[in-house]
Amino acid sequence: MHDSMPLPLAMLIVFGSAKLLSELFERCKQPGIVGEILAGALIGPSVLGWIHPNDTLKALSDLGVMFLLFGVGLEVKASELLKVGGKATLVATIGVIVPFFAGWGILLAWGAPQVEAIFVGAAMVATSVGITASVLSGRGLLHEIASKIILAAAVIDDVLGLIVLAVVSAIARGRINFWEIALTAALATGFTVLMAVWGTTALNRLLPHFQSRARADDAKFHIALVLLFALALLAQYTGVAAIVGAFLAGLALTDGADARVRTLTRGVSELLVPFFLVGIGLNLNVRVFRSKSILALALLILAAAVVTKLVGCGLGALSLGWENVLKVGLGMVPRGEVGMVVAQIGLGLSVISSEVYAVVVFMVVATTLVTPLLLKLAFRSPQPLPAS
Amino acid sequence: MHDSMPLPLAMLIVFGSAKLLSELFERCKQPGIVGEILAGALIGPSVLGWIHPNDTLKALSDLGVMFLLFGVGLEVKASELLKVGGKATLVATIGVIVPFFAGWGILLAWGAPQVEAIFVGAAMVATSVGITASVLSGRGLLHEIASKIILAAAVIDDVLGLIVLAVVSAIARGRINFWEIALTAALATGFTVLMAVWGTTALNRLLPHFQSRARADDAKFHIALVLLFALALLAQYTGVAAIVGAFLAGLALTDGADARVRTLTRGVSELLVPFFLVGIGLNLNVRVFRSKSILALALLILAAAVVTKLVGCGLGALSLGWENVLKVGLGMVPRGEVGMVVAQIGLGLSVISSEVYAVVVFMVVATTLVTPLLLKLAFRSPQPLPAS
Repeated sequence: MHDSMPLPLAMLIVFGSAKLLSELFERCKQPGIVGEILAGALIGPSVLGWIHPNDTLKALSDLGVMFLLFGVGLEVKASELLKVGGKATLVATIGVIVPFFAGWGILLAWGAPQVEAIFVGAAMVATSVGITASVLSGRGLLHEIASKIILAAAVIDDVLGLIVLAVVSAIARGRINFWEIALTAALATGFTVLMAVWGTTALNRLLPHFQSRARADDAKFHIALVLLFALALLAQYTGVAAIVGAFLAGLALTDGADARVRTLTRGVSELLVPFFLVGIGLNLNVRVFRSKSILALALLILAAAVVTKLVGCGLGALSLGWENVLKVGLGMVPRGEVGMVVAQIGLGLSVISSEVYAVVVFMVVATTLVTPLLLKLAFRSPQPLPAS
Repeated sequence: MHDSMPLPLAMLIVFGSAKLLSELFERCKQPGIVGEILAGALIGPSVLGWIHPNDTLKALSDLGVMFLLFGVGLEVKASELLKVGGKATLVATIGVIVPFFAGWGILLAWGAPQVEAIFVGAAMVATSVGITASVLSGRGLLHEIASKIILAAAVIDDVLGLIVLAVVSAIARGRINFWEIALTAALATGFTVLMAVWGTTALNRLLPHFQSRARADDAKFHIALVLLFALALLAQYTGVAAIVGAFLAGLALTDGADARVRTLTRGVSELLVPFFLVGIGLNLNVRVFRSKSILALALLILAAAVVTKLVGCGLGALSLGWENVLKVGLGMVPRGEVGMVVAQIGLGLSVISSEVYAVVVFMVVATTLVTPLLLKLAFRSPQPLPAS
């Protein structure tokens, strides 16, 4: 029945509720993005049941986060990210190890079998930078050193997360092929490094040829979109997330894109990003927490998810002072689809129970909800005295 | 299998092929829009089979044409359309009667049963203004008197088409409820007239209140989008096409929208309109024309579809001189989804054969293909001597 809902109605409910709650949250001096995610929880199956996840909403959500990361890439220079590359690698690496062992340990202590514990640990590994990027970009903070480390570390984290996913899937299947995993890792790393290092240079040489010859109005924007989809696809083929490809496409175009291309991109983002945020909220299902034991586990895992990234990633940024430790640590907290995918694979292989799956989904949604609130506090500090 | 195609791949194929063929056509001094429709035929099931119609592509296509008409509405003043209202009503009415009888007559002469002939006649009635609007807007011709008559007549045509659809469905079901049809007609007419006459005034009073209070960046654009989806939905509920609602939303915002709102809207259109154009081409299936008799019928129906709108709508614009007769007549030639919907209803009720259904789909696609080519010739005349 919901699939036959008229398209304008679905658009109106999702977009309208997102912007309404965003506005309400802003008026209560809270981040609008939290309102948009909660709008998804509200209109979704968990509360009102007006909107159910379907293929079209998923596609709009996926496009939304691609355009979000593409837009963020446009605002950042690849060279500046490469400068913080060493530090970002440290941040990403410690930030992968600590949450993994925390999730694994908690599940073992809770009495779960070894394989289930490994899967939950793996599901806690991958940062999803969409939420943080949206907050930083919306508040004009992308040029702070902490923001650059977060962005670079998120890309590296994605490659590491891919390797963890490959290893964990192999463990579940009972046989580990080291060559296969090494190849996956090499491909993903190669693509990412290649694009980050030479993407801008290559495009700066190629683009003028295309643009001077194209007949269409806004041909620059068309070329930018083709590059966006092509790199998102390549990223997906090499194993990293499509949004990493989208971000790298934006990075490569930082010099080449003019104000008009940025505004046109912004138009698409303004329409589609709410679908990404609402899509997160739609996944929340609070009804599974009838058992107190599961609720306790969910809260424990959530606390661990926040604290381990905060400490792990923060440690990597220790040389930049306590303020940046807090910013970088918090910026890396949100988990995303990769965590849910790991849990889904576990569920499909019957090594994860449906309750533990719900706990992972709750952790993913809750980390995206708390991050904007915490980031607001952490990035308040440019003023010498914190405003009340 | 095709539904599990990665989203970036589908986006890349559809958007990339559309822009590539558009560019090729422009270089051959042909309308780019024809290239984009043919791109759909090329990548679709008929030739390469890379892309098959699915829910997501349908949604992107529907959004594309909504944003196209919304953008066109933003460029036109409601008051100027109302000024040509009388003439547009005449254009729309004759342009509905002539094609209906032509389609009906041809099918009867071809030996089809009475009900099938009525359905084909009905399928030839409704103009779809998307293609014409795209050509006129792309070439900066929206302010010509012929363009305004086309836009106003297309809206009226849509209401008339709705009434024809209601009558034909009733005939097929075997019982005609005049009150029901009158109610449908009254609702659709009421909504359209109300929005066209008072929409701008109402919004000019309401918008400043909302905008001065909203906290978000680009709140104007958010309000515009909510209005777009709300009116598209209302239009659909009252029975007219969602794109008529989208057009009326644009009209109502002509005064209220600033340059930034227009550019942000343009960004969305640039991304999504190719999905609308490719979507038309995807429907083309040339393989059904193995029988010479069906091919002959298809060409005859196509010729009738072009000539009847050209003559019928042209007649209505006779007082404006021959040049405008040609422009208005040609601008009203493209048929769209409503024609296919009529044929689908007939197919569902088994009063239309699958061959005749294919003929209607061919007529719809072919009228959209020939119109841009013919419009290019008709709107060339501002120069005193036609360029070679």
